[in-house]
Amino acid sequence: MSATRTDVVGIGNAIVDIIGRCDDAYLTKIGASKGSMRLVEAGDIAAIYATMGSAVEISGGSAANTIAGVASFGGQAGFMGKIADDEFGRIFTHDIRAIGVAFNSTPIANSDPTSRSLILVTPDGERTMNTYLGISTSLDESQIDRTLIRDSSILYLEGYLFDREGAKRAFRESIKEARSAGRSVALSLSDAFCVDRHRNDFLELIRSGIDILFANESEIQSLYQTSSFDDAANTARQDTKLAVLTRSAKGSIIFSQGESMEIAAEPIKRVIDTTGAGDLYAAGFLFGYARQYPLEISGKLASLAAAEIISHIGARPAVSLQKLAQDRGIIP
Amino acid sequence: MSATRTDVVGIGNAIVDIIGRCDDAYLTKIGASKGSMRLVEAGDIAAIYATMGSAVEISGGSAANTIAGVASFGGQAGFMGKIADDEFGRIFTHDIRAIGVAFNSTPIANSDPTSRSLILVTPDGERTMNTYLGISTSLDESQIDRTLIRDSSILYLEGYLFDREGAKRAFRESIKEARSAGRSVALSLSDAFCVDRHRNDFLELIRSGIDILFANESEIQSLYQTSSFDDAANTARQDTKLAVLTRSAKGSIIFSQGESMEIAAEPIKRVIDTTGAGDLYAAGFLFGYARQYPLEISGKLASLAAAEIISHIGARPAVSLQKLAQDRGIIP
Repeated sequence: MSATRTDVVGIGNAIVDIIGRCDDAYLTKIGASKGSMRLVEAGDIAAIYATMGSAVEISGGSAANTIAGVASFGGQAGFMGKIADDEFGRIFTHDIRAIGVAFNSTPIANSDPTSRSLILVTPDGERTMNTYLGISTSLDESQIDRTLIRDSSILYLEGYLFDREGAKRAFRESIKEARSAGRSVALSLSDAFCVDRHRNDFLELIRSGIDILFANESEIQSLYQTSSFDDAANTARQDTKLAVLTRSAKGSIIFSQGESMEIAAEPIKRVIDTTGAGDLYAAGFLFGYARQYPLEISGKLASLAAAEIISHIGARPAVSLQKLAQDRGIIP
Repeated sequence: MSATRTDVVGIGNAIVDIIGRCDDAYLTKIGASKGSMRLVEAGDIAAIYATMGSAVEISGGSAANTIAGVASFGGQAGFMGKIADDEFGRIFTHDIRAIGVAFNSTPIANSDPTSRSLILVTPDGERTMNTYLGISTSLDESQIDRTLIRDSSILYLEGYLFDREGAKRAFRESIKEARSAGRSVALSLSDAFCVDRHRNDFLELIRSGIDILFANESEIQSLYQTSSFDDAANTARQDTKLAVLTRSAKGSIIFSQGESMEIAAEPIKRVIDTTGAGDLYAAGFLFGYARQYPLEISGKLASLAAAEIISHIGARPAVSLQKLAQDRGIIP
């Protein structure tokens, strides 16, 4: 097993977020389930955009946010995703490269547009996502960068991608490549509805050898079809080497080789926008893990990054996470 | 003089802002003068974008920000500007309509792109703008909506537009239309460099009958070519019916028919991004003036709106200015 120059490489949907505020009644009106992500068609997204309030555009995408977070901690990171040759493709590319991430996708001309997600933030800070995948629907194994995967300590997979056959092939090929180079593989379950749609495939994937599994309460309970978090957690610890389960304000629990460790949530004054909370939690943990910090430090980095991201609009760090972690004395 | 249904109609560049952070050294590197606005070509903007940090996209444009502010106060407002049939044109249109502004421009296909401004915010919160006008360079009198102008209490003109002949014709035609309907005409000087390039035209425009003139210290001193603010202010009060001069943290002074009134700046905890400070100051004042509030109330609304906008990234209000002003007891 050779040394790597990259800490984490991620694969996911390359998305630009269009973030606006709304009240709960608006979510009901458009038939959106609060706190979830749903895939919508071009016509639906135009209809929602026409009625939602004014917005801001910020690069997003679940794994892409995680990878941007790893880079913000000072980690070497790479991302694989599919973009069109359009304005949103240029925005996505600029922002992820500007934070120091290796991103080598060639923009596709005369195609469906770059993915976008209409993110509606309610007064409680909760986000509800309406995602039009556009060109990301055709992401497949041809987008994977085998050299980058072999050069990365950790391969990180976004569960959202697992909705389509081409993306599933990209997952399986990426995992094969990472395994053959002796790398770790991490997976985020992403969304309870997504887990529900693909439960058996997820279980098969996890049991075939995911090293690090990230999930929140509803996702892990959906995976194991139980209303008990403890039951779900117990099954997860048997199915993976390392399970990292997040519980919003209750913090998180890390299960590793028979051990378990609780990590407190980082206190913040006010939740502005929860978009990216799980993504940035994963960023802190993966950076710490790749740099071989103790699990407790990795957990603290995770909580810190999640707290930073929910204190402002958007799912990309507004400050250097490296500096933030150093100022708190978590890392030197 | 008939009653109007619209409080303020504005004409200006329809711009989407691309806002990122940088240090002072970066401004020197790209040859930008801190705090100013400069017009750049397509190649220049691509070169700056390639080296600047990650960014967020938020609708902007000086007069457009003012008009959005008037709408946020609960005013009836309209905007005239030119957009291309592209992603930024759709973003601009969505955001200004979403806040309740009448905006009826037809997107132009197969044209130069919609205007954008790379806005670099330094750690002190100061903004430096690099604007690529694209399709706005061809804005002319054909974009003006005569019905809207006749229906508006105030016509508001953005000085930035005054760089091109077509836009100057649009100004003159708009003013003629407003005058013939007995409406008030307001002008913002926008930028000291812009004033410097077109001093004589600005003086002629102002002396031909601008009712309300907005300027900051450097703009009014540039207009009258003096290093004394008091001298400049004295000349301004002779040249206009109402001169509203802003002095950043020192507040503002309103000169009206021989009277003068000082308005304190609204205190804020920390300046995050000064983009739009002058635009939103004008919004508060114009809303108050159109609704025939006393000058002092109009000034307070102006200071409040300016304080709100510099407390976050972007030049569009993040909260309802109407609610904010009501909560402070400034308006019922």
